Amino acid sequence: MNIAVLGTGSVGATIASKLVSLGHDVMMGSRTAGNEKAVAWAQAAGARARTGTFADAAGFGEVVFNCTKGGASLEALRAAGDGALDGKVLVDVSNSIPPLPPGSASLGEQIQQACPGARVVKALNTMNAAMMVDPGQLPGAHAVFVSGNDAGAKAQVTAILQSFGWRDVIDLGDITTARQVEAYLGLWLALWKSLGTMAFNIAIVRR
Amino acid sequence: MNIAVLGTGSVGATIASKLVSLGHDVMMGSRTAGNEKAVAWAQAAGARARTGTFADAAGFGEVVFNCTKGGASLEALRAAGDGALDGKVLVDVSNSIPPLPPGSASLGEQIQQACPGARVVKALNTMNAAMMVDPGQLPGAHAVFVSGNDAGAKAQVTAILQSFGWRDVIDLGDITTARQVEAYLGLWLALWKSLGTMAFNIAIVRR
Repeated sequence: MNIAVLGTGSVGATIASKLVSLGHDVMMGSRTAGNEKAVAWAQAAGARARTGTFADAAGFGEVVFNCTKGGASLEALRAAGDGALDGKVLVDVSNSIPPLPPGSASLGEQIQQACPGARVVKALNTMNAAMMVDPGQLPGAHAVFVSGNDAGAKAQVTAILQSFGWRDVIDLGDITTARQVEAYLGLWLALWKSLGTMAFNIAIVRR
Repeated sequence: MNIAVLGTGSVGATIASKLVSLGHDVMMGSRTAGNEKAVAWAQAAGARARTGTFADAAGFGEVVFNCTKGGASLEALRAAGDGALDGKVLVDVSNSIPPLPPGSASLGEQIQQACPGARVVKALNTMNAAMMVDPGQLPGAHAVFVSGNDAGAKAQVTAILQSFGWRDVIDLGDITTARQVEAYLGLWLALWKSLGTMAFNIAIVRR
């Protein structure tokens, strides 16, 4: 599949490299063409990796991962161009640091509103980058969540997550539930501090 | 031990009955003496169970569980009387429904501020009442959290939680981390809706 990854940070590079390793063609998008971090990533990642602007990447990908910082996501998506994401699956991995005030719409909802033609799925924002693409580093079927309005888009994202090794993909409901997984960031940060490692995740234990 | 439970709802009754079954002497406190639900609970729970006002209960318990509704907790603790909780372990189980307005401190923090002499420990607000006292209904060492400023109080609460059957009691830090477990309520509600059962809990999986 042709997949775009918006953002050149560690989350973007980690997800993009995993997608390349699974045989996808991946374009990393950034504000300007020739972004140093994007070029360095593409050189390391091999023939299936390429780079471009946010608009280039949005045009290239059937599925688009938003891995930009939460505070920069809406601007990055605007830079992708009006309607560029129409009909596409937009996987929103972003978190807001510092957290959004309680009561405000989540980033996932804000992005769906800003890109009404995109099929936004919130996912993967509840663990660190290494865990996102390597859930097998921990035992058992620990959890990743999907939130979105489009069932077909959630099914496509679920299949990608399963290809990463995820065994318990929980559909939380429509995009308004992005609020709940974004609000979990505070508990994640407290657990990181308490446990002294980022190599953890939550499992949803039920009968 | 002499333990007080403030609140006559299902959380209060469930915790109070569990404490009686473990051999503690328990007083259920309510706004007025002779509260019908409290009296009915005490009659069913047997000789170690008794009832009283919030002030009676606060005087009785070495450890005091706040099981009142979040919106009524501060008033209930005021009714217990100034200084009545000084030096006591105050286990705050409350949640705010609907969520607290933007920018406000958590209930746990508000309670610690309102009762500066009490040793407040936030705990057990991340699952339903049946799960609080019967974690063994699910397999494995799923998680319960404690937040508070007093290490000795957290150790005492941890021992009580272990007597309930909890095997993974995670110390999140000081009382400001109550904010994170209270913010988890939204995710709990979304999971309830998605899973169609309250019989679940999170485990923190790590190596």
